[in-house]
Amino acid sequence: MPQLRIALAQVNTTVGDIDGNTALTVEWTRKAAEAGAHVVVFPEMSQTGYPVEDLTLRRTFADASRRSVTELARRLDEAGCGDVLAYVGYLDHDEIGPRDAAAALYRGEVVARQFKHHLPNYGVFDEHRYFKPGTELEVLRLHGVDIGMVICEDIWQDGGPISALGKAGVDLVVAPNASPYERSKDEQRLPLIARRAAEAGAPLVYTNQVGGQDDLVFDGDSLVVGADGTLLARAPQFVEHLLVLDLDLPVASAAATGSFDGLEVHRRVLNDSPLVEYSPLVAPTISEPLSDEAEVWSALVVGLRDYVHKNGFSSVTFGFSGGIDSAVCAALAADALGGDNVYGVSMPSKYSSSHSRDDASDLAERIGAHYRVEPIGDMVDVYVNQLQLTGLAEENIQARVRGMLLMALSNLDGHLVLATGNKTELAVGYSTIYGDAVGAFAPIKDLFKTHVWQLARWRNEEAAKRGETPPIPENSITKPPSAELRPDQKDSDSLPDYELLDDVLDDYVENDRGYADLIEAGFDPETIDRVVRLVDRAEYKRRQYPPGTKITFKAFGRDRRLPMTNGWRERKS
Amino acid sequence: MPQLRIALAQVNTTVGDIDGNTALTVEWTRKAAEAGAHVVVFPEMSQTGYPVEDLTLRRTFADASRRSVTELARRLDEAGCGDVLAYVGYLDHDEIGPRDAAAALYRGEVVARQFKHHLPNYGVFDEHRYFKPGTELEVLRLHGVDIGMVICEDIWQDGGPISALGKAGVDLVVAPNASPYERSKDEQRLPLIARRAAEAGAPLVYTNQVGGQDDLVFDGDSLVVGADGTLLARAPQFVEHLLVLDLDLPVASAAATGSFDGLEVHRRVLNDSPLVEYSPLVAPTISEPLSDEAEVWSALVVGLRDYVHKNGFSSVTFGFSGGIDSAVCAALAADALGGDNVYGVSMPSKYSSSHSRDDASDLAERIGAHYRVEPIGDMVDVYVNQLQLTGLAEENIQARVRGMLLMALSNLDGHLVLATGNKTELAVGYSTIYGDAVGAFAPIKDLFKTHVWQLARWRNEEAAKRGETPPIPENSITKPPSAELRPDQKDSDSLPDYELLDDVLDDYVENDRGYADLIEAGFDPETIDRVVRLVDRAEYKRRQYPPGTKITFKAFGRDRRLPMTNGWRERKS
Repeated sequence: MPQLRIALAQVNTTVGDIDGNTALTVEWTRKAAEAGAHVVVFPEMSQTGYPVEDLTLRRTFADASRRSVTELARRLDEAGCGDVLAYVGYLDHDEIGPRDAAAALYRGEVVARQFKHHLPNYGVFDEHRYFKPGTELEVLRLHGVDIGMVICEDIWQDGGPISALGKAGVDLVVAPNASPYERSKDEQRLPLIARRAAEAGAPLVYTNQVGGQDDLVFDGDSLVVGADGTLLARAPQFVEHLLVLDLDLPVASAAATGSFDGLEVHRRVLNDSPLVEYSPLVAPTISEPLSDEAEVWSALVVGLRDYVHKNGFSSVTFGFSGGIDSAVCAALAADALGGDNVYGVSMPSKYSSSHSRDDASDLAERIGAHYRVEPIGDMVDVYVNQLQLTGLAEENIQARVRGMLLMALSNLDGHLVLATGNKTELAVGYSTIYGDAVGAFAPIKDLFKTHVWQLARWRNEEAAKRGETPPIPENSITKPPSAELRPDQKDSDSLPDYELLDDVLDDYVENDRGYADLIEAGFDPETIDRVVRLVDRAEYKRRQYPPGTKITFKAFGRDRRLPMTNGWRERKS
Repeated sequence: MPQLRIALAQVNTTVGDIDGNTALTVEWTRKAAEAGAHVVVFPEMSQTGYPVEDLTLRRTFADASRRSVTELARRLDEAGCGDVLAYVGYLDHDEIGPRDAAAALYRGEVVARQFKHHLPNYGVFDEHRYFKPGTELEVLRLHGVDIGMVICEDIWQDGGPISALGKAGVDLVVAPNASPYERSKDEQRLPLIARRAAEAGAPLVYTNQVGGQDDLVFDGDSLVVGADGTLLARAPQFVEHLLVLDLDLPVASAAATGSFDGLEVHRRVLNDSPLVEYSPLVAPTISEPLSDEAEVWSALVVGLRDYVHKNGFSSVTFGFSGGIDSAVCAALAADALGGDNVYGVSMPSKYSSSHSRDDASDLAERIGAHYRVEPIGDMVDVYVNQLQLTGLAEENIQARVRGMLLMALSNLDGHLVLATGNKTELAVGYSTIYGDAVGAFAPIKDLFKTHVWQLARWRNEEAAKRGETPPIPENSITKPPSAELRPDQKDSDSLPDYELLDDVLDDYVENDRGYADLIEAGFDPETIDRVVRLVDRAEYKRRQYPPGTKITFKAFGRDRRLPMTNGWRERKS
């Protein structure tokens, strides 16, 4: 049987940086060539990064993307890897409009271009805004093997390209992807791909993007499955990786062209003779998926690191309050950037407890962060006295003075400011706009409060298992949460118990359940009224909140778009 | 010939407020009945408001919307206006999915439901995210006249419902719309509607929504054109209005049902006999479109007023700096809310000139606003001394102290804070995040600086023409703009001349032109480099900016979605 060595280049591109992505593609194709690969498959839109949003509509950008593919083919050949058939993704723009495209590059030339057929337009996807669907499929024969391609959503929908390729006949299918991470998505991905391979009647090579882009994070988890659905190889999650394996494939028989399921199948022969049987073969690796906690933690670390680095920053600063939220943000930041790039600031007021400062300095020591103390009393006093502030206005000014202090330090020293709020606070509006919501990135904005505690415990246990110092002070995990904006304040003064609150939010926000469903789920009407009222009125704060890595389906932000001027309130009937 | 009296109810709905919108519809149908109308046409999605964004996907909301239509039919009948055939818009949700729907209500019943066919998905529209397209058309015979309906985008696209109705045969077409205002849109609308009426071979009744919703504002401008394209009646812009006219219509002949252009045409007879000829007829009114300046000014006033009122506020506060931006915001706010609901705050620092305070207090007096002076010196000094701030950090802390001061006053007194930045500043990042960008709404964020000056002059001239005090101090218009954050600072220290800058921005941002186009337009390469570099790096500030009424096609905000982590820079080649 003909053999082919396949490489999956699970790389971390940067949106918009066509030059940088081109250099990355040359580097990884060279690695694939050095590993003896005959085919290398990059992620969807690898030349432009994904998603490029409204840059798609900018003609100079689309032109630069198109040009970059021709240029890349030439550069790959010059770099001595022209004999590797390279599948790369890019933005095309023809007489019909913009296209989510992939190209095959071989011996200095673009030998095929294909456009994505199924365009997702839900959740974080807006592809009907950006792209026109493709209706043609390009099958290339390399060393006697017929290789078809499909792009991302084309494998998530029934029918379409996979079905057409199956009917027309191919020996191998490659699939460039940019499929964002969601919790437990790895559990959906493998069965789906196995089913599609069976439909195509051929092994399927699925390369996914890795890394963070604004609110999105991509976990990689690139896969190869056989025509019978068997998992043959799997890349690790959340890291760049070149996954290499040898496939034994059937001899291509004269196969059909023409129209299948409304799609036009074209064929081109690059090279008709199978390779002479070679050995030794590469032992394929199947990486184990991460545990649930490790997966979420990695998503948050990678999302944070890439946001900071891809925006040209190397260090972060934020308030070390002694509480659990800032402690978990600090542990994430230290894992992402190194403790030496974390600048913690304790900003005590007259309402701050002594344990807050002790826990904050303990945290800094555990993770090796820089640490300074800047009391806010004098700043707050001027506002309070000059404007005669009381009540909520006095509480908020403390949070705001802290936000402004952090921004001043950011302006002086060039650190990116992080906001430490969690999803529970954000959902119910328990935060101060221009106060604790200040920052360019919010690492835990997609974690409910109970989830923050759970991950803190998990991260400490992992450290203990490895014989390292647990990063998070035990006291920050166990003490009752407080904003410390007035004497003896506790979160429980204003909010239901977090276990209960998060349960209601999970039903009301994540699962879009209504009042009757909540009653049926056993919540008491008073709690429902209280939580629903808080959530329905917190929209303005959510819109003003900085981005943060999306790990669950309905994060606040990109994929949940609610009107700010909004008369709707969930009601009993 | 059969006669019908038609009423167009150009109303201002509130998104999400189904109860309020139902009450509004009852009230205006009663007005139509009192005016003797036989048919009343409301805007698109009048029961839910438009656009409802992700509320569309909330099942309890869709169910409430569906129920509200049946309930409304009953209430109209009870209110004694059941004999008026009322066309209203609502959100439906059937086994296929959510629908942008319109219903016809008559004698206590829902006599027809129809779903929008063409779903716009560009600019501010995301309808592929929300709706499934309809494929059926409902024609109702009332008093011997066959009335077809189309919904909004159905008239903006060639082919589809209008063409199908033309082929099937109708005597009148009604079109509920929610078509957002853009500059000079009225010039496109009339010729388009005239063309569609000719295609349908019948008069076309176009009712558009009026009022503000987040960044969008709807201008009304409801129209009726004859089958020959003649303009028969036109409502005024930016106000609620009941436009009433009598139409002489042909006798309905037995007309076709079945499939036309892929759409299924159904017919139902409500009432087969033409009305006995009546008189006197209503004299139709044709309102003159506003001048360009008056149109933009009205859009900004209405957008601001509705944002404030629909969010439950009645008053606003913001910094009165003595400069042109805050002066124009103040004049807009006074026109929107009355001077008595405007609370100006002068916040001088040691760098503030004496003319700034004079101009600010002059402004307050001219528009009848409340006015107070709160020096920021003491607040700034604490930050500067404690943190040793210099340079940009010292400039920014002044803007931020002002922002926090306004938020504190908002917390004390319940005013909504306005941000006074203009589109030029926003485009090039010449503003302080958490400083002058603080606010819930930014009235002039979609006006370039040169446009701010132009409207200021126009508004003062209008006042003079009416014998009123011009609202804007002449000195605020004529003096060179300065942020006054360091000694003798001028905007021209950091930015090109505003005339030149706005010209480049208009090409680069509004018209999406590239480097080569800008060179061809005659700008020198140094200016292009400077402006393009500023714009390409200001994205984070734009994302954090509050909403403001969109008056031009590519406002920053909803309809321009750029990645924050973005390696793309416009370049020469």
